[in-house]
Amino acid sequence: MCDVPLRWADMDAFGHVNNVVYLRYLQEARVDMLFVHAPEHGAEQLARGVIVKWHEIDYRAPLHFRPAPVRVETWVTEVRAASFGLGYEVLDLGPDGQRTIYAVAASVLVPYDRADGRIRRIASREREVLERLLELDGPAPRRSR
Amino acid sequence: MCDVPLRWADMDAFGHVNNVVYLRYLQEARVDMLFVHAPEHGAEQLARGVIVKWHEIDYRAPLHFRPAPVRVETWVTEVRAASFGLGYEVLDLGPDGQRTIYAVAASVLVPYDRADGRIRRIASREREVLERLLELDGPAPRRSR
Amino acid sequence: MCDVPLRWADMDAFGHVNNVVYLRYLQEARVDMLFVHAPEHGAEQLARGVIVKWHEIDYRAPLHFRPAPVRVETWVTEVRAASFGLGYEVLDLGPDGQRTIYAVAASVLVPYDRADGRIRRIASREREVLERLLELDGPAPRRSR
Amino acid sequence: MCDVPLRWADMDAFGHVNNVVYLRYLQEARVDMLFVHAPEHGAEQLARGVIVKWHEIDYRAPLHFRPAPVRVETWVTEVRAASFGLGYEVLDLGPDGQRTIYAVAASVLVPYDRADGRIRRIASREREVLERLLELDGPAPRRSR
Repeated sequence: MCDVPLRWADMDAFGHVNNVVYLRYLQEARVDMLFVHAPEHGAEQLARGVIVKWHEIDYRAPLHFRPAPVRVETWVTEVRAASFGLGYEVLDLGPDGQRTIYAVAASVLVPYDRADGRIRRIASREREVLERLLELDGPAPRRSR
Repeated sequence: MCDVPLRWADMDAFGHVNNVVYLRYLQEARVDMLFVHAPEHGAEQLARGVIVKWHEIDYRAPLHFRPAPVRVETWVTEVRAASFGLGYEVLDLGPDGQRTIYAVAASVLVPYDRADGRIRRIASREREVLERLLELDGPAPRRSR
Repeated sequence: MCDVPLRWADMDAFGHVNNVVYLRYLQEARVDMLFVHAPEHGAEQLARGVIVKWHEIDYRAPLHFRPAPVRVETWVTEVRAASFGLGYEVLDLGPDGQRTIYAVAASVLVPYDRADGRIRRIASREREVLERLLELDGPAPRRSR
Repeated sequence: MCDVPLRWADMDAFGHVNNVVYLRYLQEARVDMLFVHAPEHGAEQLARGVIVKWHEIDYRAPLHFRPAPVRVETWVTEVRAASFGLGYEVLDLGPDGQRTIYAVAASVLVPYDRADGRIRRIASREREVLERLLELDGPAPRRSR
Protein backbone atom coordinates (compact mmCIF):
# COMPACT_ATOMS: atom_id res chain seq x y z
CA MET A 1 0.00 0.00 0.00
CA CYS A 2 1.52 3.25 -1.11
CA ASP A 3 0.25 6.78 -1.64
CA VAL A 4 1.68 8.15 -4.88
CA PRO A 5 1.48 11.94 -5.30
CA LEU A 6 0.43 13.08 -8.76
CA ARG A 7 2.34 15.75 -10.62
CA TRP A 8 0.66 18.43 -12.66
CA ALA A 9 2.92 17.35 -15.52
CA ASP A 10 1.36 13.87 -15.46
CA MET A 11 -1.55 15.27 -17.45
CA ASP A 12 -1.38 15.20 -21.22
CA ALA A 13 -2.85 17.57 -23.79
CA PHE A 14 -6.30 16.02 -23.17
CA GLY A 15 -6.13 17.15 -19.52
CA HIS A 16 -6.12 13.56 -18.16
CA VAL A 17 -3.32 11.73 -16.44
CA ASN A 18 -1.77 10.04 -19.47
CA ASN A 19 -2.14 6.26 -19.76
CA VAL A 20 1.64 5.84 -19.77
CA VAL A 21 1.96 7.68 -16.46
CA TYR A 22 -0.16 5.08 -14.67
CA LEU A 23 2.71 2.65 -15.24
CA ARG A 24 4.98 5.22 -13.65
CA TYR A 25 2.71 5.07 -10.58
CA LEU A 26 2.97 1.27 -10.55
CA GLN A 27 6.74 1.60 -10.75
CA GLU A 28 6.84 3.98 -7.81
CA ALA A 29 4.63 1.64 -5.77
CA ARG A 30 6.93 -1.26 -6.69
CA VAL A 31 10.01 0.71 -5.73
CA ASP A 32 8.35 1.55 -2.43
CA MET A 33 7.63 -2.15 -1.83
CA LEU A 34 10.98 -3.55 -3.00
CA PHE A 35 13.48 -0.77 -2.24
CA VAL A 36 11.94 0.59 0.93
CA HIS A 37 9.99 -2.19 2.63
CA ALA A 38 11.46 -5.48 1.37
CA PRO A 39 15.03 -4.71 2.50
CA GLU A 40 13.81 -4.43 6.06
CA HIS A 41 12.76 -8.05 5.81
CA GLY A 42 15.72 -9.68 4.13
CA ALA A 43 15.26 -9.18 0.41
CA GLU A 44 17.98 -6.58 -0.13
CA GLN A 45 19.06 -8.14 -3.40
CA LEU A 46 15.59 -7.82 -4.91
CA ALA A 47 15.77 -4.14 -4.11
CA ARG A 48 18.97 -3.86 -6.11
CA GLY A 49 17.71 -5.31 -9.34
CA VAL A 50 14.44 -6.47 -10.80
CA ILE A 51 13.49 -6.47 -14.48
CA VAL A 52 9.95 -6.11 -15.76
CA LYS A 53 9.08 -9.00 -18.07
CA TRP A 54 5.41 -8.31 -18.67
CA HIS A 55 2.67 -5.80 -17.83
CA GLU A 56 -1.07 -5.75 -18.25
CA ILE A 57 -3.20 -2.79 -17.29
CA ASP A 58 -6.90 -2.14 -17.52
CA TYR A 59 -7.97 1.49 -17.25
CA ARG A 60 -11.27 1.93 -15.41
CA ALA A 61 -11.73 5.69 -14.89
CA PRO A 62 -9.93 8.89 -15.90
CA LEU A 63 -7.73 10.58 -13.35
CA HIS A 64 -7.09 14.33 -13.16
CA PHE A 65 -4.44 16.24 -11.29
CA ARG A 66 -5.27 17.16 -7.71
CA PRO A 67 -3.06 17.85 -4.70
CA ALA A 68 -4.01 14.59 -2.95
CA PRO A 69 -2.02 11.44 -3.80
CA VAL A 70 -3.61 8.38 -5.33
CA ARG A 71 -3.41 5.06 -3.55
CA VAL A 72 -1.69 2.09 -5.18
CA GLU A 73 -2.32 -1.26 -3.54
CA THR A 74 0.20 -3.90 -4.52
CA TRP A 75 0.27 -7.60 -3.75
CA VAL A 76 2.14 -10.70 -4.85
CA THR A 77 0.14 -12.97 -7.14
CA GLU A 78 2.59 -15.85 -7.55
CA VAL A 79 6.18 -16.84 -6.78
CA ARG A 80 8.00 -19.07 -9.26
CA ALA A 81 11.61 -20.26 -9.55
CA ALA A 82 12.93 -17.22 -11.40
CA SER A 83 10.02 -14.77 -11.51
CA PHE A 84 7.17 -13.46 -9.44
CA GLY A 85 3.89 -11.75 -10.21
CA LEU A 86 2.42 -8.56 -8.79
CA GLY A 87 -1.16 -7.29 -8.84
CA TYR A 88 -2.07 -3.64 -8.39
CA GLU A 89 -5.07 -1.41 -7.94
CA VAL A 90 -4.87 2.35 -8.42
CA LEU A 91 -7.70 3.89 -6.40
CA ASP A 92 -9.14 6.52 -4.14
CA LEU A 93 -10.57 5.51 -0.80
CA GLY A 94 -13.60 7.60 0.11
CA PRO A 95 -14.39 8.80 3.64
CA ASP A 96 -16.86 5.95 4.14
CA GLY A 97 -14.50 3.36 2.71
CA GLN A 98 -15.91 3.17 -0.83
CA ARG A 99 -13.29 2.55 -3.50
CA THR A 100 -13.02 4.46 -6.79
CA ILE A 101 -10.85 2.27 -9.01
CA TYR A 102 -8.81 4.03 -11.71
CA ALA A 103 -6.85 1.00 -12.94
CA VAL A 104 -6.17 -2.66 -12.23
CA ALA A 105 -2.84 -4.06 -13.35
CA ALA A 106 -0.48 -7.03 -13.20
CA SER A 107 3.24 -7.51 -13.81
CA VAL A 108 5.73 -10.35 -14.05
CA LEU A 109 9.13 -9.48 -12.60
CA VAL A 110 12.47 -11.24 -12.82
CA PRO A 111 15.34 -10.87 -10.32
CA TYR A 112 18.42 -9.48 -11.98
CA ASP A 113 22.04 -9.51 -10.86
CA ARG A 114 23.38 -6.08 -11.75
CA ALA A 115 27.04 -7.11 -11.25
CA ASP A 116 26.64 -10.03 -13.68
CA GLY A 117 24.12 -8.35 -15.91
CA ARG A 118 22.13 -11.59 -15.80
CA ILE A 119 18.73 -12.68 -14.59
CA ARG A 120 18.82 -15.10 -11.66
CA ARG A 121 16.63 -17.41 -9.56
CA ILE A 122 14.74 -16.21 -6.49
CA ALA A 123 16.69 -16.87 -3.29
CA SER A 124 14.96 -18.63 -0.39
CA ARG A 125 15.00 -15.54 1.86
CA GLU A 126 13.39 -13.56 -0.95
CA ARG A 127 10.80 -16.27 -1.46
CA GLU A 128 9.79 -15.99 2.19
CA VAL A 129 9.43 -12.22 1.96
CA LEU A 130 7.41 -12.46 -1.25
CA GLU A 131 5.19 -15.25 0.03
CA ARG A 132 4.17 -13.16 3.02
CA LEU A 133 2.78 -10.67 0.47
CA LEU A 134 0.85 -13.31 -1.52
CA GLU A 135 -2.80 -12.63 -2.13
CA LEU A 136 -4.04 -15.20 -4.57
CA ASP A 137 -7.59 -14.00 -5.04
CA GLY A 138 -7.00 -10.29 -5.64
CA PRO A 139 -8.68 -8.59 -8.59
CA ALA A 140 -6.95 -9.02 -11.92
CA PRO A 141 -6.98 -7.01 -15.15
CA ARG A 142 -9.20 -9.22 -17.24
CA ARG A 143 -9.14 -8.36 -20.92
CA SER A 144 -12.10 -6.04 -20.82
CA ARG A 145 -13.36 -5.05 -24.24
CA MET B 1 5.36 1.39 -39.34
CA CYS B 2 7.10 4.21 -37.59
CA ASP B 3 10.68 4.96 -36.60
CA VAL B 4 10.74 6.34 -33.06
CA PRO B 5 13.95 8.13 -32.02
CA LEU B 6 15.17 7.30 -28.53
CA ARG B 7 16.15 10.00 -26.10
CA TRP B 8 19.11 9.68 -23.78
CA ALA B 9 16.71 10.49 -20.95
CA ASP B 10 14.70 7.35 -21.75
CA MET B 11 17.27 5.35 -19.80
CA ASP B 12 16.77 4.82 -16.11
CA ALA B 13 19.33 4.43 -13.32
CA PHE B 14 20.00 0.84 -14.51
CA GLY B 15 21.17 2.20 -17.88
CA HIS B 16 18.31 0.52 -19.83
CA VAL B 17 15.42 2.16 -21.56
CA ASN B 18 12.89 2.03 -18.72
CA ASN B 19 9.92 -0.33 -19.11
CA VAL B 20 7.49 2.58 -18.82
CA VAL B 21 9.14 4.38 -21.72
CA TYR B 22 8.32 1.52 -24.13
CA LEU B 23 4.68 2.52 -23.72
CA ARG B 24 5.69 6.04 -24.64
CA TYR B 25 7.10 4.61 -27.88
CA LEU B 26 3.81 2.79 -28.53
CA GLN B 27 1.99 6.06 -27.92
CA GLU B 28 4.17 7.91 -30.41
CA ALA B 29 3.63 5.17 -33.01
CA ARG B 30 -0.11 5.37 -32.37
CA VAL B 31 -0.10 9.15 -32.72
CA ASP B 32 1.82 8.76 -35.96
CA MET B 33 -0.79 6.29 -37.23
CA LEU B 34 -3.92 8.13 -36.03
CA PHE B 35 -2.92 11.81 -36.07
CA VAL B 36 -0.67 11.79 -39.09
CA HIS B 37 -1.74 8.98 -41.40
CA ALA B 38 -5.39 8.23 -40.58
CA PRO B 39 -6.61 11.79 -41.26
CA GLU B 40 -5.38 11.50 -44.82
CA HIS B 41 -7.83 8.66 -45.26
CA GLY B 42 -10.97 10.00 -43.61
CA ALA B 43 -10.62 9.25 -39.92
CA GLU B 44 -10.01 12.80 -38.70
CA GLN B 45 -12.20 12.30 -35.67
CA LEU B 46 -10.16 9.35 -34.46
CA ALA B 47 -7.14 11.59 -34.59
CA ARG B 48 -8.86 14.06 -32.28
CA GLY B 49 -9.66 11.70 -29.48
CA VAL B 50 -8.95 8.12 -28.52
CA ILE B 51 -8.77 6.72 -25.01
CA VAL B 52 -6.64 3.76 -24.02
CA LYS B 53 -8.75 1.13 -22.30
CA TRP B 54 -6.22 -1.66 -21.91
CA HIS B 55 -2.55 -2.46 -22.58
CA GLU B 56 -0.49 -5.60 -22.50
CA ILE B 57 3.24 -5.62 -23.13
CA ASP B 58 5.79 -8.40 -23.13
CA TYR B 59 9.42 -7.29 -22.89
CA ARG B 60 11.77 -9.48 -24.93
CA ALA B 61 15.18 -7.78 -24.85
CA PRO B 62 16.76 -4.76 -23.15
CA LEU B 63 17.18 -1.59 -25.17
CA HIS B 64 19.94 0.97 -24.66
CA PHE B 65 20.23 4.51 -25.95
CA ARG B 66 21.77 4.89 -29.38
CA PRO B 67 21.41 7.60 -32.02
CA ALA B 68 19.39 5.37 -34.37
CA PRO B 69 15.61 5.20 -33.90
CA VAL B 70 13.81 1.98 -33.04
CA ARG B 71 11.11 0.68 -35.34
CA VAL B 72 7.55 0.26 -34.07
CA GLU B 73 5.27 -1.78 -36.31
CA THR B 74 1.60 -1.25 -35.56
CA TRP B 75 -1.43 -3.04 -36.93
CA VAL B 76 -5.14 -3.33 -36.20
CA THR B 77 -6.12 -6.59 -34.50
CA GLU B 78 -9.90 -6.14 -34.37
CA VAL B 79 -12.63 -3.57 -34.96
CA ARG B 80 -15.70 -3.66 -32.75
CA ALA B 81 -18.70 -1.35 -32.33
CA ALA B 82 -17.07 1.05 -29.89
CA SER B 83 -13.47 -0.08 -29.63
CA PHE B 84 -10.60 -1.40 -31.69
CA GLY B 85 -7.47 -3.33 -30.95
CA LEU B 86 -3.87 -2.62 -31.93
CA GLY B 87 -0.85 -4.92 -31.99
CA TYR B 88 2.74 -3.64 -31.92
CA GLU B 89 6.26 -4.87 -32.25
CA VAL B 90 9.23 -2.78 -31.14
CA LEU B 91 12.22 -3.98 -33.10
CA ASP B 92 15.42 -3.40 -35.02
CA LEU B 93 15.67 -4.56 -38.59
CA GLY B 94 19.16 -5.83 -39.41
CA PRO B 95 20.91 -5.23 -42.74
CA ASP B 96 19.97 -8.71 -43.93
CA GLY B 97 16.37 -8.39 -42.76
CA GLN B 98 16.68 -10.24 -39.43
CA ARG B 99 14.47 -8.85 -36.68
CA THR B 100 15.60 -8.15 -33.11
CA ILE B 101 12.39 -7.89 -31.10
CA TYR B 102 12.48 -5.70 -27.97
CA ALA B 103 8.80 -5.90 -27.10
CA VAL B 104 5.45 -7.16 -28.35
CA ALA B 105 2.34 -5.34 -27.17
CA ALA B 106 -1.40 -4.94 -27.62
CA SER B 107 -3.92 -2.22 -26.77
CA VAL B 108 -7.66 -1.70 -26.78
CA LEU B 109 -8.67 1.82 -27.77
CA VAL B 110 -12.00 3.63 -27.54
CA PRO B 111 -13.05 6.62 -29.65
CA TYR B 112 -13.75 9.64 -27.51
CA ASP B 113 -15.67 12.79 -28.28
CA ARG B 114 -13.65 15.60 -26.73
CA ALA B 115 -16.46 18.15 -27.06
CA ASP B 116 -18.88 15.87 -25.19
CA GLY B 117 -16.29 14.30 -22.95
CA ARG B 118 -17.89 10.94 -23.78
CA ILE B 119 -16.81 7.75 -25.47
CA ARG B 120 -18.60 7.02 -28.74
CA ARG B 121 -19.10 4.33 -31.39
CA ILE B 122 -16.79 3.92 -34.37
CA ALA B 123 -18.13 5.71 -37.47
CA SER B 124 -18.37 3.83 -40.75
CA ARG B 125 -15.62 5.90 -42.43
CA GLU B 126 -13.34 5.13 -39.48
CA ARG B 127 -14.21 1.45 -39.67
CA GLU B 128 -13.10 1.37 -43.30
CA VAL B 129 -9.80 3.05 -42.46
CA LEU B 130 -9.16 0.70 -39.55
CA GLU B 131 -10.14 -2.40 -41.48
CA ARG B 132 -7.57 -1.61 -44.14
CA LEU B 133 -4.98 -1.89 -41.35
CA LEU B 134 -6.29 -5.23 -40.03
CA GLU B 135 -3.76 -7.99 -39.62
CA LEU B 136 -5.44 -10.80 -37.77
CA ASP B 137 -2.55 -13.18 -37.45
CA GLY B 138 0.16 -10.84 -36.19
CA PRO B 139 2.24 -11.82 -33.17
CA ALA B 140 0.63 -11.17 -29.80
CA PRO B 141 2.01 -10.66 -26.30
CA ARG B 142 1.20 -14.04 -24.82
CA ARG B 143 1.52 -14.12 -21.05
CA SER B 144 5.07 -15.35 -21.04
CA ARG B 145 6.25 -16.46 -17.62
CA MET C 1 7.10 26.08 0.85
CA CYS C 2 6.29 22.72 -0.61
CA ASP C 3 7.55 19.19 -0.10
CA VAL C 4 8.00 17.53 -3.49
CA PRO C 5 8.31 13.72 -3.44
CA LEU C 6 10.99 12.33 -5.71
CA ARG C 7 10.27 9.48 -8.09
CA TRP C 8 12.72 6.68 -8.72
CA ALA C 9 12.32 7.46 -12.41
CA ASP C 10 13.71 10.98 -11.81
CA MET C 11 17.20 9.49 -11.88
CA ASP C 12 19.04 9.26 -15.17
CA ALA C 13 21.60 6.71 -16.38
CA PHE C 14 24.23 8.39 -14.16
CA GLY C 15 22.14 7.56 -11.08
CA HIS C 16 21.50 11.24 -10.21
CA VAL C 17 18.25 13.13 -10.38
CA ASN C 18 18.57 14.54 -13.90
CA ASN C 19 19.12 18.29 -14.26
CA VAL C 20 15.92 18.63 -16.28
CA VAL C 21 13.86 17.06 -13.50
CA TYR C 22 14.79 19.85 -11.06
CA LEU C 23 12.71 22.14 -13.25
CA ARG C 24 9.88 19.66 -12.88
CA TYR C 25 10.20 20.10 -9.10
CA LEU C 26 10.05 23.90 -9.53
CA GLN C 27 6.95 23.45 -11.66
CA GLU C 28 5.25 21.32 -9.02
CA ALA C 29 6.11 23.88 -6.32
CA ARG C 30 4.73 26.63 -8.55
CA VAL C 31 1.54 24.68 -9.18
CA ASP C 32 1.21 24.14 -5.45
CA MET C 33 1.60 27.89 -4.88
CA LEU C 34 -0.60 29.13 -7.74
CA PHE C 35 -3.19 26.37 -8.19
CA VAL C 36 -3.58 25.31 -4.59
CA HIS C 37 -2.76 28.25 -2.34
CA ALA C 38 -3.27 31.40 -4.46
CA PRO C 39 -6.92 30.64 -5.32
CA GLU C 40 -7.76 30.69 -1.63
CA HIS C 41 -6.64 34.30 -1.60
CA GLY C 42 -8.25 35.73 -4.72
CA ALA C 43 -5.88 34.92 -7.56
CA GLU C 44 -7.99 32.24 -9.24
CA GLN C 45 -7.15 33.50 -12.71
CA LEU C 46 -3.42 33.13 -12.13
CA ALA C 47 -4.07 29.53 -11.25
CA ARG C 48 -5.75 29.03 -14.60
CA GLY C 49 -2.97 30.22 -16.78
CA VAL C 50 0.62 31.32 -16.39
CA ILE C 51 3.36 31.06 -19.00
CA VAL C 52 7.03 30.67 -18.20
CA LYS C 53 9.05 33.38 -19.94
CA TRP C 54 12.47 32.73 -18.47
CA HIS C 55 14.30 30.36 -16.11
CA GLU C 56 17.70 30.36 -14.49
CA ILE C 57 18.93 27.52 -12.33
CA ASP C 58 22.21 26.96 -10.52
CA TYR C 59 22.88 23.38 -9.45
CA ARG C 60 24.71 23.16 -6.12
CA ALA C 61 24.74 19.48 -5.13
CA PRO C 62 23.66 16.16 -6.68
CA LEU C 63 20.41 14.63 -5.54
CA HIS C 64 19.69 10.90 -5.41
CA PHE C 65 16.41 9.09 -5.06
CA ARG C 66 15.23 8.49 -1.51
CA PRO C 67 11.74 7.99 -0.08
CA ALA C 68 11.71 11.41 1.65
CA PRO C 69 10.51 14.42 -0.37
CA VAL C 70 12.75 17.38 -1.09
CA ARG C 71 11.73 20.82 0.05
CA VAL C 72 11.17 23.60 -2.48
CA GLU C 73 10.93 27.09 -1.01
CA THR C 74 9.35 29.59 -3.39
CA TRP C 75 8.98 33.32 -3.06
CA VAL C 76 8.03 36.28 -5.24
CA THR C 77 11.01 38.41 -6.31
CA GLU C 78 9.20 41.20 -8.16
CA VAL C 79 5.77 42.16 -9.50
CA ARG C 80 5.59 44.15 -12.72
CA ALA C 81 2.72 45.23 -14.95
CA ALA C 82 2.49 42.03 -16.97
CA SER C 83 4.95 39.65 -15.34
CA PHE C 84 6.26 38.55 -11.98
CA GLY C 85 9.40 36.88 -10.78
CA LEU C 86 9.83 33.84 -8.55
CA GLY C 87 12.86 32.65 -6.62
CA TYR C 88 13.32 29.05 -5.45
CA GLU C 89 15.59 26.95 -3.31
CA VAL C 90 15.57 23.16 -3.53
CA LEU C 91 16.88 21.86 -0.21
CA ASP C 92 16.88 19.44 2.68
CA LEU C 93 16.36 20.76 6.17
CA GLY C 94 18.43 18.82 8.71
CA PRO C 95 17.21 17.91 12.21
CA ASP C 96 19.12 20.85 13.70
CA GLY C 97 17.93 23.27 11.03
CA GLN C 98 20.99 23.19 8.75
CA ARG C 99 20.17 23.55 5.07
CA THR C 100 21.60 21.39 2.29
CA ILE C 101 20.97 23.34 -0.90
CA TYR C 102 20.60 21.31 -4.12
CA ALA C 103 19.66 24.18 -6.42
CA VAL C 104 18.78 27.87 -6.47
CA ALA C 105 16.59 29.10 -9.29
CA ALA C 106 14.57 32.02 -10.63
CA SER C 107 11.73 32.37 -13.15
CA VAL C 108 9.83 35.12 -14.88
CA LEU C 109 6.15 34.29 -15.36
CA VAL C 110 3.47 35.95 -17.46
CA PRO C 111 -0.29 35.72 -16.83
CA TYR C 112 -2.06 34.13 -19.73
CA ASP C 113 -5.70 34.17 -20.70
CA ARG C 114 -6.47 30.67 -21.89
CA ALA C 115 -9.80 31.64 -23.47
CA ASP C 116 -8.12 34.35 -25.55
CA GLY C 117 -4.83 32.56 -25.97
CA ARG C 118 -3.13 35.84 -25.10
CA ILE C 119 -0.88 37.11 -22.36
CA ARG C 120 -2.43 39.77 -20.13
CA ARG C 121 -1.61 42.27 -17.37
CA ILE C 122 -1.66 41.37 -13.69
CA ALA C 123 -4.98 42.26 -12.06
CA SER C 124 -5.00 44.28 -8.84
CA ARG C 125 -6.30 41.38 -6.71
CA GLU C 126 -3.50 39.21 -8.08
CA ARG C 127 -0.95 41.93 -7.36
CA GLU C 128 -2.03 41.98 -3.72
CA VAL C 129 -1.69 38.20 -3.43
CA LEU C 130 1.72 38.21 -5.11
CA GLU C 131 3.00 41.15 -3.07
CA ARG C 132 2.23 39.32 0.16
CA LEU C 133 4.70 36.67 -1.06
CA LEU C 134 7.44 39.17 -1.95
CA GLU C 135 10.88 38.53 -0.48
CA LEU C 136 13.27 40.92 -2.11
CA ASP C 137 16.50 39.78 -0.53
CA GLY C 138 16.23 36.02 -1.05
CA PRO C 139 19.18 34.13 -2.54
CA ALA C 140 19.45 34.26 -6.29
CA PRO C 141 21.11 32.00 -8.86
CA ARG C 142 24.16 34.10 -9.64
CA ARG C 143 25.99 32.92 -12.73
CA SER C 144 28.43 30.71 -10.88
CA ARG C 145 31.28 29.51 -13.03
CA MET D 1 23.13 21.42 -35.14
CA CYS D 2 20.66 18.70 -34.36
CA ASP D 3 17.09 17.96 -35.33
CA VAL D 4 15.16 16.86 -32.26
CA PRO D 5 11.84 15.09 -32.92
CA LEU D 6 8.98 16.17 -30.69
CA ARG D 7 6.80 13.64 -28.91
CA TRP D 8 3.09 14.10 -28.53
CA ALA D 9 3.62 13.56 -24.81
CA ASP D 10 5.81 16.67 -24.66
CA MET D 11 2.65 18.75 -24.55
CA ASP D 12 1.15 19.60 -21.19
CA ALA D 13 -2.47 20.15 -20.19
CA PHE D 14 -2.35 23.62 -21.84
CA GLY D 15 -1.60 21.96 -25.20
CA HIS D 16 1.88 23.54 -25.49
CA VAL D 17 5.23 21.83 -25.30
CA ASN D 18 5.90 22.24 -21.59
CA ASN D 19 8.67 24.65 -20.55
CA VAL D 20 10.52 21.83 -18.80
CA VAL D 21 10.61 19.76 -21.98
CA TYR D 22 12.63 22.44 -23.81
CA LEU D 23 15.49 21.55 -21.47
CA ARG D 24 15.03 17.95 -22.51
CA TYR D 25 15.57 19.08 -26.10
CA LEU D 26 18.74 20.92 -25.08
CA GLN D 27 19.90 17.74 -23.35
CA GLU D 28 19.30 15.65 -26.44
CA ALA D 29 21.19 18.19 -28.58
CA ARG D 30 24.05 18.13 -26.07
CA VAL D 31 24.12 14.34 -26.06
CA ASP D 32 24.21 14.42 -29.85
CA MET D 33 27.15 16.85 -29.76
CA LEU D 34 29.13 15.18 -26.95
CA PHE D 35 28.24 11.49 -27.23
CA VAL D 36 27.90 11.23 -30.96
CA HIS D 37 30.09 13.87 -32.59
CA ALA D 38 32.79 14.77 -30.02
CA PRO D 39 34.11 11.18 -29.67
CA GLU D 40 34.96 11.17 -33.36
CA HIS D 41 37.34 14.02 -32.67
CA GLY D 42 39.12 12.93 -29.51
CA ALA D 43 36.88 13.95 -26.63
CA GLU D 44 35.67 10.49 -25.65
CA GLN D 45 35.93 11.26 -21.94
CA LEU D 46 33.61 14.23 -22.24
CA ALA D 47 31.08 11.92 -23.77
CA ARG D 48 31.26 9.67 -20.71
CA GLY D 49 30.52 12.27 -18.10
CA VAL D 50 29.48 15.89 -17.96
CA ILE D 51 27.51 17.57 -15.18
CA VAL D 52 25.23 20.54 -15.70
CA LYS D 53 26.20 23.36 -13.32
CA TRP D 54 23.92 26.10 -14.56
CA HIS D 55 21.16 26.77 -17.12
CA GLU D 56 19.43 29.85 -18.39
CA ILE D 57 16.59 29.75 -20.89
CA ASP D 58 14.49 32.44 -22.44
CA TYR D 59 11.25 31.29 -24.06
CA ARG D 60 10.37 33.26 -27.18
CA ALA D 61 7.38 31.49 -28.77
CA PRO D 62 5.08 28.57 -27.92
CA LEU D 63 5.71 25.25 -29.60
CA HIS D 64 3.03 22.67 -30.43
CA PHE D 65 3.38 19.04 -31.37
CA ARG D 66 3.86 18.35 -35.06
CA PRO D 67 5.49 15.45 -36.87
CA ALA D 68 8.49 17.52 -37.99
CA PRO D 69 11.47 17.82 -35.63
CA VAL D 70 12.62 21.13 -34.22
CA ARG D 71 16.16 22.31 -34.85
CA VAL D 72 18.53 22.91 -31.94
CA GLU D 73 21.69 24.80 -32.80
CA THR D 74 24.42 24.44 -30.20
CA TRP D 75 27.77 26.18 -29.91
CA VAL D 76 30.53 26.62 -27.35
CA THR D 77 30.55 30.03 -25.66
CA GLU D 78 33.70 29.69 -23.54
CA VAL D 79 36.25 27.14 -22.40
CA ARG D 80 37.72 27.48 -18.92
CA ALA D 81 39.99 25.26 -16.81
CA ALA D 82 37.27 23.05 -15.39
CA SER D 83 34.09 24.10 -17.16
CA PHE D 84 32.77 25.18 -20.51
CA GLY D 85 29.75 27.09 -21.69
CA LEU D 86 27.20 26.22 -24.36
CA GLY D 87 24.72 28.42 -26.17
CA TYR D 88 21.60 27.10 -27.89
CA GLU D 89 18.80 28.20 -30.14
CA VAL D 90 15.64 26.14 -30.57
CA LEU D 91 14.15 27.09 -33.93
CA ASP D 92 12.42 26.29 -37.19
CA LEU D 93 14.11 27.17 -40.42
CA GLY D 94 11.61 28.27 -43.05
CA PRO D 95 11.87 27.37 -46.75
CA ASP D 96 13.38 30.78 -47.55
CA GLY D 97 15.80 30.62 -44.63
CA GLN D 98 13.82 32.73 -42.12
CA ARG D 99 14.23 31.62 -38.52
CA THR D 100 11.37 31.18 -36.03
CA ILE D 101 13.04 31.16 -32.63
CA TYR D 102 11.27 29.22 -29.84
CA ALA D 103 13.96 29.58 -27.18
CA VAL D 104 17.49 30.82 -26.58
CA ALA D 105 19.47 29.17 -23.80
CA ALA D 106 22.89 28.82 -22.18
CA SER D 107 24.51 26.21 -19.93
CA VAL D 108 27.69 25.80 -17.92
CA LEU D 109 28.99 22.23 -17.95
CA VAL D 110 31.65 20.54 -15.87
CA PRO D 111 33.59 17.41 -16.87
CA TYR D 112 33.00 14.58 -14.44
CA ASP D 113 34.96 11.42 -13.85
CA ARG D 114 32.36 8.72 -13.37
CA ALA D 115 34.87 6.22 -11.97
CA ASP D 116 36.01 8.68 -9.29
CA GLY D 117 32.66 10.37 -8.87
CA ARG D 118 34.52 13.68 -9.01
CA ILE D 119 34.58 16.70 -11.27
CA ARG D 120 37.82 17.21 -13.15
CA ARG D 121 39.70 19.69 -15.35
CA ILE D 122 39.31 19.81 -19.11
CA ALA D 123 42.04 17.82 -20.88
CA SER D 124 44.01 19.44 -23.69
CA ARG D 125 42.53 17.19 -26.40
CA GLU D 126 39.06 18.13 -25.16
CA ARG D 127 39.97 21.80 -25.16
CA GLU D 128 40.95 21.56 -28.81
CA VAL D 129 37.66 19.89 -29.72
CA LEU D 130 35.64 22.44 -27.76
CA GLU D 131 37.55 25.41 -29.14
CA ARG D 132 36.76 24.36 -32.68
CA LEU D 133 33.09 24.78 -31.71
CA LEU D 134 33.56 28.24 -30.16
CA GLU D 135 31.26 30.97 -31.35
CA LEU D 136 31.76 33.95 -29.13
CA ASP D 137 29.19 36.28 -30.58
CA GLY D 138 26.17 33.96 -30.72
CA PRO D 139 22.84 35.15 -29.33
CA ALA D 140 22.45 34.79 -25.57
CA PRO D 141 19.41 34.53 -23.31
CA ARG D 142 19.39 38.04 -21.92
CA ARG D 143 17.10 38.42 -18.93
CA SER D 144 14.11 39.53 -20.90
CA ARG D 145 11.34 40.88 -18.72
